[in-house]
Amino acid sequence: MDSAKTERPAHPLSDEELARLDAYWRAANYLTVGQIYLLDNPLLREPLRPEHVKPRLLGHWGTSPGLSLIYAHLNRCVKARGLDMIYVCGPGHGGPAMVANTWLEGTYPELHPSVDHSEEGMRRLFRQFSFPGGIPSHVAAEVPGSIHEGGELGYSLAHAYGAAFDNPGLTVACVVGDGEAESGPLAGSWFSNVFLNPVSDGTVLPILHLNGYKIANQTVFARISDEDREHFFRGAGYDPVLVEGDDPAEVHRALAAALDRCFDRIAEIRADARGRANGAPVRPRWPMVVLRTPKGWTGPSEVDGVPVEGTWRAHQVPLAEVRTSAEHLALLEEWMRSYRPEELFDATGAPVPELLGLPPEGEARMSANPHANGGLLLRDLVLPDYRDYGVEVEGHGATVAEATRTLGAWLRDVMDANPDRFRLFGPDEVASNRLGAVFETTDRQWEAAILPTDEHQAPHGRVMEVLSEHLCEGWLEGYLLTGRHGVFTSYEAFIHIVDSMFNQHAKWLDAARRIPWRRPVASLNYLLSSHVWRQDHNGFSHQDPGFLDHVMTKKADVVRVYLPPDANTLLSTMDHCLRSRQYVNVVVAGKQPALQYTSMEEAVRHCERGLGIWEWASTDGGREPDVVLACAGDVPTLEVLAAADLLRRELPDLRVRVVNVVDLMRLQPDSEHPHGLSDREFDTVFTADRPVLFAFHGYPTLIHRLTYRRANHANLHVRGYKEEGTTTTPFDMVMLNDLDRYRLVIDVIDRVPGLGANAAGLRQRMVDTRHAAREHTRAHGEDLPEVSDWSWPG
Amino acid sequence: MDSAKTERPAHPLSDEELARLDAYWRAANYLTVGQIYLLDNPLLREPLRPEHVKPRLLGHWGTSPGLSLIYAHLNRCVKARGLDMIYVCGPGHGGPAMVANTWLEGTYPELHPSVDHSEEGMRRLFRQFSFPGGIPSHVAAEVPGSIHEGGELGYSLAHAYGAAFDNPGLTVACVVGDGEAESGPLAGSWFSNVFLNPVSDGTVLPILHLNGYKIANQTVFARISDEDREHFFRGAGYDPVLVEGDDPAEVHRALAAALDRCFDRIAEIRADARGRANGAPVRPRWPMVVLRTPKGWTGPSEVDGVPVEGTWRAHQVPLAEVRTSAEHLALLEEWMRSYRPEELFDATGAPVPELLGLPPEGEARMSANPHANGGLLLRDLVLPDYRDYGVEVEGHGATVAEATRTLGAWLRDVMDANPDRFRLFGPDEVASNRLGAVFETTDRQWEAAILPTDEHQAPHGRVMEVLSEHLCEGWLEGYLLTGRHGVFTSYEAFIHIVDSMFNQHAKWLDAARRIPWRRPVASLNYLLSSHVWRQDHNGFSHQDPGFLDHVMTKKADVVRVYLPPDANTLLSTMDHCLRSRQYVNVVVAGKQPALQYTSMEEAVRHCERGLGIWEWASTDGGREPDVVLACAGDVPTLEVLAAADLLRRELPDLRVRVVNVVDLMRLQPDSEHPHGLSDREFDTVFTADRPVLFAFHGYPTLIHRLTYRRANHANLHVRGYKEEGTTTTPFDMVMLNDLDRYRLVIDVIDRVPGLGANAAGLRQRMVDTRHAAREHTRAHGEDLPEVSDWSWPG
Ligand SMILES: Cc1ncc(C[n+]2csc(CCOP(=O)(O)OP(=O)(O)O)c2C)c(N)n1
Ligand SMILES: Cc1ncc(C[n+]2csc(CCOP(=O)(O)OP(=O)(O)O)c2C)c(N)n1
Ligand SMILES: [Mg+2]
Ligand SMILES: [Mg+2]
Repeated sequence: MDSAKTERPAHPLSDEELARLDAYWRAANYLTVGQIYLLDNPLLREPLRPEHVKPRLLGHWGTSPGLSLIYAHLNRCVKARGLDMIYVCGPGHGGPAMVANTWLEGTYPELHPSVDHSEEGMRRLFRQFSFPGGIPSHVAAEVPGSIHEGGELGYSLAHAYGAAFDNPGLTVACVVGDGEAESGPLAGSWFSNVFLNPVSDGTVLPILHLNGYKIANQTVFARISDEDREHFFRGAGYDPVLVEGDDPAEVHRALAAALDRCFDRIAEIRADARGRANGAPVRPRWPMVVLRTPKGWTGPSEVDGVPVEGTWRAHQVPLAEVRTSAEHLALLEEWMRSYRPEELFDATGAPVPELLGLPPEGEARMSANPHANGGLLLRDLVLPDYRDYGVEVEGHGATVAEATRTLGAWLRDVMDANPDRFRLFGPDEVASNRLGAVFETTDRQWEAAILPTDEHQAPHGRVMEVLSEHLCEGWLEGYLLTGRHGVFTSYEAFIHIVDSMFNQHAKWLDAARRIPWRRPVASLNYLLSSHVWRQDHNGFSHQDPGFLDHVMTKKADVVRVYLPPDANTLLSTMDHCLRSRQYVNVVVAGKQPALQYTSMEEAVRHCERGLGIWEWASTDGGREPDVVLACAGDVPTLEVLAAADLLRRELPDLRVRVVNVVDLMRLQPDSEHPHGLSDREFDTVFTADRPVLFAFHGYPTLIHRLTYRRANHANLHVRGYKEEGTTTTPFDMVMLNDLDRYRLVIDVIDRVPGLGANAAGLRQRMVDTRHAAREHTRAHGEDLPEVSDWSWPG
Repeated sequence: MDSAKTERPAHPLSDEELARLDAYWRAANYLTVGQIYLLDNPLLREPLRPEHVKPRLLGHWGTSPGLSLIYAHLNRCVKARGLDMIYVCGPGHGGPAMVANTWLEGTYPELHPSVDHSEEGMRRLFRQFSFPGGIPSHVAAEVPGSIHEGGELGYSLAHAYGAAFDNPGLTVACVVGDGEAESGPLAGSWFSNVFLNPVSDGTVLPILHLNGYKIANQTVFARISDEDREHFFRGAGYDPVLVEGDDPAEVHRALAAALDRCFDRIAEIRADARGRANGAPVRPRWPMVVLRTPKGWTGPSEVDGVPVEGTWRAHQVPLAEVRTSAEHLALLEEWMRSYRPEELFDATGAPVPELLGLPPEGEARMSANPHANGGLLLRDLVLPDYRDYGVEVEGHGATVAEATRTLGAWLRDVMDANPDRFRLFGPDEVASNRLGAVFETTDRQWEAAILPTDEHQAPHGRVMEVLSEHLCEGWLEGYLLTGRHGVFTSYEAFIHIVDSMFNQHAKWLDAARRIPWRRPVASLNYLLSSHVWRQDHNGFSHQDPGFLDHVMTKKADVVRVYLPPDANTLLSTMDHCLRSRQYVNVVVAGKQPALQYTSMEEAVRHCERGLGIWEWASTDGGREPDVVLACAGDVPTLEVLAAADLLRRELPDLRVRVVNVVDLMRLQPDSEHPHGLSDREFDTVFTADRPVLFAFHGYPTLIHRLTYRRANHANLHVRGYKEEGTTTTPFDMVMLNDLDRYRLVIDVIDRVPGLGANAAGLRQRMVDTRHAAREHTRAHGEDLPEVSDWSWPG
């Protein structure tokens, strides 16, 4: 196909420019190899000896020359065109290459003065890489200019698009590994261009790094035909430009021409779109680059008789026996000298002036671009007073409202007040999760065709809906890391799809916290609705509250979990989350019509405390109770209150204390989590020796895991989801899992000393009522009216 | 593009055939609507009244007519061509449509005689759907012919390919929702065709169900141009045939023609490939269908003044107020009568003979195809005696070997002995995880270009490597559910990528266990190597042992976790796993050179017990110890033994018991897990009151979660991964997480009554040694020789 041919137009680079670019590339490669191999003798002033070499050779060479080639060429474009650009590096294992470039352009020495442009600085640069006490092997938070660690492959393109949203001046160059491109999340990211507005958003320039190999295998994109590859990317809406070769000078010329063509085209697209009077949807055919060069290019072509350059063998450390094999040592020296370091660095070890002149300056350097340290650009959200959006609650547990619908009105006004820095992301569930009020002020952003029958679809909007949890998460992460705010709303069960992405983001936040020059970014907020207890339309596959267990494995500094029981507490919680920084907040909330327990005033107090005794539902008179009924989550709260109501009527002498937990982290010891209650406080609320029945939204073991160190843990009995489920009624679901009000009453009878035989009649009635409740569902397909219509008698 | 045009060739169907197909489709649609809406009056013998309608309307209409249309047409082809075919339904929420078809073809009545071809049977069919005590809303395990629940969208195509591997006679029709197609895992599945051998594997026929909408949004594939879509699929290696329309007769004709063309082409491809003498790689351009018809086709076109048919509003239940609105009720009746049930069912409620004559018979019916109940076809693996592959262990803790490399040799021979029913799946990590011995007998399967420099790549092979954990998992699940065996080997951290797929599979196994006609399938085996403690090349992003925590949330009936400490225990464990059925087995094992502790004889005994006291390392003489040092995982075992060695030398009077745990489930109470130890046994091993220091491979809380009910839990002190990590040396990693030998000795001193002040000197030396060990890494980049060269003194 005609656009697929290698670009070789009339000399886009003068010979001098070409030489300078090539020198820059050689310098970056030299510094990369130096980081992987050397402890000392950084400038090869003396012949290389085994003791100059690191004892453990760790790092990835194969991807590095390509990454640096792209870096040098992008720098040329940034400078020539005054672009505002960041570089997202998909093959994050190419850490040494990215670090080399940040050192060359001076950002690294500015942040780390001991790793300066000197021989000693270079020695430190080499030594610290993948070295104990040094820096990690990947493009981690430690690397200036990075918003993408690239350790777990597959998310580069989603991050890049997230960074571009609402940044109309920004270009995000995104290098995608051809191996990475095989992964599901990456494959699903190409169509992000359907959601990118050429006027109000920036641009993503994908660069498929077609070096042909992964760790030990060739790649799919390298072995299908050029024509198929071209078709694929055209089909995905791009205009791919192929640059191919293994002769440096030719590739320099072709790549320069290709990038010129891409940036010309991008400028045209932007001008065209921005010049249009009407906002008619246009999905431009954005350019992309396919760069086909050898893996481990310029490295040893053969080692121990087998080819290395241009094969998968170049992936990690091509010469493994440098300390023990004279031949390998000689090959390494030859390899490093092939870059002619003497031409690249002066006597002091600093890059020669012509190299220093190549990259742009100040914040124009991709490694110093403030977008890649988003906290620098972060501005607070303007938040309307959530108290004005609350549900008017008459008494307790009598008013009915839908929590997420209530929240929706506030979110609408949050969007309205922050039209350039807040977005809502969801896998086609914004309406289903009853947040539809946001469409009173905005639309879903969509650049492809829009039909007259569509609703709330527009080329520009603040709601991002795509049937991909991976894209929602990746876009949001990219958006946050470049200094903006957002919420991801999903079904509770399917948020597990991004478990691993959450891990990576939490690790990033944790690492970034310890890096002085990284500024805090807005928290990643999950709003999980359509939760385990109310999958009325669906079944077992949709019932899974385990994301809470999953997030708990990450550092306490980073993770927060909230289970607001009603609409007003949800409002207060979300307001808190949107103000917070550098956390992952997980909020689980119901979307179904449900009883409301707290007035706005009470909700504010309750959320500030994180948990509290509900005196209105308790019969302990604020004194030592006989039993504590604790609950977390909207459905468990309902069941606990219904049980408390039963107990109050049936066993009027029993002193029952009802405790509701919003902030799950309060249960942990204060030594484990900053939100944790002291033992004294905990014992005051939960007692040191009375039976505690805890009705929990998720898996019971999570509560045990949080509380096993508490004095009263042996008396703690938790009910929650025990992996029993199917398509059935709400009350049948809680009965299936022994979380229902009747079962809780039975638990009380079984556990409070002295009740047992004395409450045998009540116990038997509870057993019978459960059977009757189940039978009713089987006969009528719905719950007993006395159950579904129950409200707190006040 | 020419192949994109709607197919309208000369009459592939006679008018009579067309009428019959259409009647069948109408019957399926009628039965679908009946399931969603009706409690009674199934044949509409009397006018529809509110009380005939279910009180809770649950289910998904929108996708259903398309699914049934495809079903009817595939049946025609199965019958006409004698195809061996199964139907994978991506939009699994179309459960009522799939159930309707299994009822029509008689499979459902055969399995459930009370739901037979009678009016009463039909009433039960309708009533049970999404009804308490009935059947789930999705194409769950309860649905005959299903290997794919389709609740969590995105895995249909991967499952389909997995089913096709090594089934050269099978065709897997796979309906992909156009919304589902936006998800990452689905997007990454198209290139599965690069891995499908046209000779030794079956065929997948993807059918993109382009009904234009998801829950509340349009879809990407519906709104890009026909040309882009065509390009995309051609680029992915397919030959897409578009069938488009909203006139039933026309679509019937076009679809019949398209399917004829597809099956002709498939037959040609197979014949051609199978006729070839040499095994040269060929990646045929397999056909696929793009079916563009309205969402909710044949349903109400407008409700309450807004369009429904052909919009997202048709997704769930188009008429929501049937019990309360006379208008909705009338619309429902009109809708159902539009299918002319009186022509479709006879007086008894049975489908009329001409309908019964349409589907194929017996096992040719897609709902009765034994491939979709894989346990029926499952044959045991021929397993070579693993004892013959063991490491010769001289003494304990002195021999060095790589556990996974040892396993590799056995796996090689497992492959050799089972050339048609065992595969190894991995995301480019088979060699890295040191299982390379398998390439002595087989290759990686790959149908695209192969270069002379490639190694172990061939059109046919038993190793499936693709850089997609989703594909590995999905393929393996499809392979297992159709009655074969396999292992998925992955880095430990990145297996979280498939957390949610694991959930879905575990839930499937759990549900299937309770369905009498489903036969047990082989277990899904994860071999996690490159684990948290030995990410020497990588960093924090690669350090995550939390998959163990994740799997523990699922039913004890289904989940098994093993941490063999060395090569011989790994062999014994894997042999056990490959013999097991209907489980998910998670095995974590090291790939690095490591000390070997158990002779083959000991390994067999140890694995049979699941845990055990290592007397050779203990100084308690088999009597009550002063302290228990427990360990699970290869690295913790090493540290515990090194600590035991130190204690033996430094505190010779201390009675230390060393316990190693292979089968993590042994720690749970026997009431919680079938592998659980009784309290008596547990207390015998771990004592009822002595300090227990547990060095654990994963997050410490997991051990607490498993043991909090044990008598001695208050004395249990767990060390494990606490989310501290970076690129560093192996010993620095354990020190960072306080799991190192010196720290364990300090723990013993701090916890054993009477030691404290009496061992102050030793304690201080341990503190100093830790500092020295850390400093050594900072200075030399490697661990202290006394640490890295330590072995059990014997
Ligand atoms: C999700 C995931 N699976 C597996 C790995 C292990 N891994 C590290 S690098 C690599 C190969 C990457 O190949 P490619 O994307 O082509 O990068 P390059 O060739 O530029 O090194 C693999 C499989 C990973 N990092 N992430
Ligand atoms: C991974 C995942 N995310 C979200 C959902 C919620 N969901 C259920 S059906 C549906 C729309 C599916 O659209 P499509 O695949 O086009 O199927 P159709 O009903 O149109 O045939 C969504 C988003 C889900 N089931 N799985
Ligand atoms: Mg590559
Ligand atoms: Mg659809």
